Amino acid sequence: MSKHKVTFLPHNTAVEIDSGETLIRAAMDAGVHVNASCGGEGVCGKCRVIVESGDIKGDVSSMLSKEDFEKGYRLACLSKVEGDVVVRIPTESVVDASALNTAGSPRKTARIKEMDFNQLREQGLFLPPMEKVYVELEPPSASDNISDVTRLVTHLKLHHNEKKLQLTLPVIRKIPDVMREKDFKITAVIERPVRDDSKSRIINVQAGDTTDRNYAIALDIGTTTIYGQLVNLITGEAVAQYGEFNGQISYGEDVISRIMYAEKEGGLERLRQVVVDTINRVLDKLDKRSKVNPEDINSITIAGNTTMTQLFLGVNPRYIRRAPYVPASTLYPPLNAESLGLNLAPHVIALVFPQVSSYVGGDIVSGVMGSGMYRSDKLTLYIDIGTNAEIVIGNKDWLACTACSAGPAFEGGGIKLGMRASKGAIEDFSIDPVTYEPMIMTIGNVRPKGICGSGLITMVATMFETGVIDSRGKFNRDLGTSRIRKTDDIWEYVVTWAHETQIDRDVVLTEPDIDNLIRAKGAVYSGCQTLLEEVGLTIQDIEQVILAGGFGSYIDLDKAMTIGFLPETDADKVTFIGNGSLMGAKMSSLTNRLRNDVGEVTKTMTNFELSETPSYMDHYIAALFLPHTDLNLFPRLKARMDERRAARQQKQGI
Amino acid sequence: MSKHKVTFLPHNTAVEIDSGETLIRAAMDAGVHVNASCGGEGVCGKCRVIVESGDIKGDVSSMLSKEDFEKGYRLACLSKVEGDVVVRIPTESVVDASALNTAGSPRKTARIKEMDFNQLREQGLFLPPMEKVYVELEPPSASDNISDVTRLVTHLKLHHNEKKLQLTLPVIRKIPDVMREKDFKITAVIERPVRDDSKSRIINVQAGDTTDRNYAIALDIGTTTIYGQLVNLITGEAVAQYGEFNGQISYGEDVISRIMYAEKEGGLERLRQVVVDTINRVLDKLDKRSKVNPEDINSITIAGNTTMTQLFLGVNPRYIRRAPYVPASTLYPPLNAESLGLNLAPHVIALVFPQVSSYVGGDIVSGVMGSGMYRSDKLTLYIDIGTNAEIVIGNKDWLACTACSAGPAFEGGGIKLGMRASKGAIEDFSIDPVTYEPMIMTIGNVRPKGICGSGLITMVATMFETGVIDSRGKFNRDLGTSRIRKTDDIWEYVVTWAHETQIDRDVVLTEPDIDNLIRAKGAVYSGCQTLLEEVGLTIQDIEQVILAGGFGSYIDLDKAMTIGFLPETDADKVTFIGNGSLMGAKMSSLTNRLRNDVGEVTKTMTNFELSETPSYMDHYIAALFLPHTDLNLFPRLKARMDERRAARQQKQGI
Repeated sequence: MSKHKVTFLPHNTAVEIDSGETLIRAAMDAGVHVNASCGGEGVCGKCRVIVESGDIKGDVSSMLSKEDFEKGYRLACLSKVEGDVVVRIPTESVVDASALNTAGSPRKTARIKEMDFNQLREQGLFLPPMEKVYVELEPPSASDNISDVTRLVTHLKLHHNEKKLQLTLPVIRKIPDVMREKDFKITAVIERPVRDDSKSRIINVQAGDTTDRNYAIALDIGTTTIYGQLVNLITGEAVAQYGEFNGQISYGEDVISRIMYAEKEGGLERLRQVVVDTINRVLDKLDKRSKVNPEDINSITIAGNTTMTQLFLGVNPRYIRRAPYVPASTLYPPLNAESLGLNLAPHVIALVFPQVSSYVGGDIVSGVMGSGMYRSDKLTLYIDIGTNAEIVIGNKDWLACTACSAGPAFEGGGIKLGMRASKGAIEDFSIDPVTYEPMIMTIGNVRPKGICGSGLITMVATMFETGVIDSRGKFNRDLGTSRIRKTDDIWEYVVTWAHETQIDRDVVLTEPDIDNLIRAKGAVYSGCQTLLEEVGLTIQDIEQVILAGGFGSYIDLDKAMTIGFLPETDADKVTFIGNGSLMGAKMSSLTNRLRNDVGEVTKTMTNFELSETPSYMDHYIAALFLPHTDLNLFPRLKARMDERRAARQQKQGI
Repeated sequence: MSKHKVTFLPHNTAVEIDSGETLIRAAMDAGVHVNASCGGEGVCGKCRVIVESGDIKGDVSSMLSKEDFEKGYRLACLSKVEGDVVVRIPTESVVDASALNTAGSPRKTARIKEMDFNQLREQGLFLPPMEKVYVELEPPSASDNISDVTRLVTHLKLHHNEKKLQLTLPVIRKIPDVMREKDFKITAVIERPVRDDSKSRIINVQAGDTTDRNYAIALDIGTTTIYGQLVNLITGEAVAQYGEFNGQISYGEDVISRIMYAEKEGGLERLRQVVVDTINRVLDKLDKRSKVNPEDINSITIAGNTTMTQLFLGVNPRYIRRAPYVPASTLYPPLNAESLGLNLAPHVIALVFPQVSSYVGGDIVSGVMGSGMYRSDKLTLYIDIGTNAEIVIGNKDWLACTACSAGPAFEGGGIKLGMRASKGAIEDFSIDPVTYEPMIMTIGNVRPKGICGSGLITMVATMFETGVIDSRGKFNRDLGTSRIRKTDDIWEYVVTWAHETQIDRDVVLTEPDIDNLIRAKGAVYSGCQTLLEEVGLTIQDIEQVILAGGFGSYIDLDKAMTIGFLPETDADKVTFIGNGSLMGAKMSSLTNRLRNDVGEVTKTMTNFELSETPSYMDHYIAALFLPHTDLNLFPRLKARMDERRAARQQKQGI
């Protein structure tokens, strides 16, 4: 995709941007504030800019008269960049030019690391767990009337070097008719064992040659969200992806409350049914989006934290929440997906990711495997941020892990207008440091419905840096803007007025929202600090940081460090992998190498229980500030704040 | 058990009999006819005898006056022998003494061969497929909080020399609570693989030490009858046994008609459900009779012919009845019994006996294994007689087999008053050669309800030898007895008049009944002849004959040879094993040695399709007579008939 240069005047700030992107995205990336509160749908009409030179695709709208259009005025949110341009922000939008250079920092583009399937194949790591073999059999005769199954198995042994082969009863039921459907030409679907000394298993047969169609589902069962991917096992590509809120949310927002519900009469079965229903909705959407024949899906690889895994499998998680925090099992055998209640063909095998401990589950193992961290030389800090945050430190030689409960804030839970990172969620935010008017962008550039996790972090960080909130997360009551107000005894900031939203009420950020975020980020930060201490390292020793989590790919790294969510580190060291659990599940559905390695990894990973580590609580309490009680832990932020204070003092002539 | 000598006058025939047996049984065994038509319940009052000396336990009855009792009269059916006795048959019962010595032949007592469990153990053949292991685990602690499953598996590996262990999901679900029920003292139920290189599997756990309770079910699914045995895996004993008619009978009496029904829309599922229902009734009865806790039953070993096996497993048998007669599979993996619809605990494993071909199924393999024929030096003829007759010839070096359809006559099917060998079935029969009055005995010595297979054979053989029927099985219309009559155009013999039965109508034997028996015995005889010919042997080469089948233990060998059911052979060579299929299933539930060997046996057994062997039809047509068109094939019967003819001619002064 071609790039264009966008220069903003009077700031004289330039940014490179993809062709076709909007001017408002360019402004956001450049750290240039433009008032805009409708999310990019052209409704508020506040983001007027003047195009001084260059190619812009845009149109007259109800918010822009023909006269203004001819003068060069455009709505930044509706203007698509088609060449290098120079844009002037009108005076009305730039109240105080002196604040320009400290108003924001350019957005750090997330470097999403994606698995390279071809590289996998070249490295000989491509050992598909589900393989299709096509055979042409001799039809039976009076002198050769061995059973149909024996005919198939013998042929596979003689001509395809198969050794030990098992069969399931459903496949035995199918073989006689399927064999005769296309004149004894038949494709066998063979499940490969993880270890060579175990048996392969014929799990399905199809008439004729169907070796060009072989699919798998990768599934991440999160406490808050469930994501599924339909993977083409021949090309390695994800054909479709879909996510839904986990239906269990109504029974408790975090794993502890879910476990408590599961301990009630009928609670376990209810929670199991509810998560199965959600998964079936995800499967249904994947099916509709992909048009893949369900008969050609052969496996579903499932990664989830220990509690989610046990609830899904109907294994009571009661001992997970009681000292000494013992999970029922860390390994599960291959299971029949249909018998688990999943709407998949009867032959589909469910492969469940192993767990390490009660609070370091299959989702994190999946991410550690999928990210390749366990095969890397680099000393790596891996953080998977969701309702629970799991933290792993190590490399190919050793791994240590821990987990803490972050609460659902990062996934939109516990936030008054919180929502998942989907269409209409505010994901980016800037504030005018004088008028305190906002610039917002939503996912899908539509009018806002709420605030997602990454938006929340950006919002709080920006407000903190501009002095709208203090280090305890309380609003400055004396800024003289109507956007900061007290409603029902709670202080809040109005991000978007009701008439510019999709929900007919003000989108607000409240002090309790900020409190929740501070507790969540405090838990993650202190988890990192504690684990680093336990293994005798500091953040400076870390060569690579991998951020995973449903909202990881949207997060603004600088902002996250500003609020003290992550230890301050060089942005170049950081990689985002998005949903690491889903990524590992996908990779595991492609190769048995991962399934083989995972056993070793889970065995060698050292687990630290934070509840057994006294220093954790001290770190946590110290982290319940923006960014931290000890600002010296964030030297770059400290420098910026000093600079900003100096600028203010200079302006005020102090 | 002590034996007593019973001498009958005026015949002066003596017989040894178990203490406590009745005089009528003694008479039957001695070949002495006493009129008796109520089955031994003391109702008809016809079996009056005079005790001349010795100890008899008997009483006055409504059929015996006090005066007669004091004169020494007794009812033979109600008189139990308690010492050596001399008994006189009153003149009224012995119309023609000259016929005495040819009236019948002494009954050949069946030598039932039973498996010796201790011998099995001594020979090192006792490798139980389901083993219980008791362990006392260390409770988890903060420094040792591995998962519950890992704790159990690790302990078993370290302290019990277990190697590869798999677990099922249901057992994982149980482990956490069961472990904590008795302070981490727990019994694991381990399923052993047939081969050493495969994995053992923990299929259940129980709190505390339950190693003294370990049971299995052995099940024979016959076309007509289904038998189950509850086996104590520690003592090797059958704790309870129960049989029922296979509910599928209403959908066709033989396998071919069942297969045809299964090919109809919904037919397969209907037949599967019906047989599952019958099995569940059998299981329920075993449960009630044994009082064994269902949780302590760990396996069910199932033997059945190929069609019965496929119908039970829901595998469509359509290709079994079409040339080239191909079964779906000859091997089935261990299955979950509950998933097959059986009312057994969720952990119970169903082990299905392998088949050889479409018409030599798991029932016959089971019998060949259970009888030990496959490990014997002796050249053996094994015949399993049921609705289908399977014939195996060979020894430890080679085995050849075939199968023919005998129809349901031997199991009481297709016979007007036919019934299974259960209480009230006429199982023994004698006829007065002058008055043609019968002596009958029923199972349980109660009034008759019908005729079972062994009774039918004895009846037809006796009638044939006394000239009541001819070699075509037609009644001699000129005998002047009201018992032979024509009803609805069909000739029949009244065995018991309605008022002496349990069913309020005459128990009769009809000419169509005899026709059915002749066709059945003809099929078996010609099957034996054809297979002998195919392997180049004659009956004289055979060193051992094993008779199996639901009614095998009741059969009178001489009578069976008289009607040409079996080739004439030395009675000493013959062993009855009863339900060989059930016996093999029981033995297989006790030791994996059998399950290991069975694979080899099924692979090396040569199968002959009678439909592909032209001489079979010739043999069959020749065998549709009593005993056969060629009487020279039955030299001993020929001699007896010659002798009888001479006696008659002498008496008539010819």
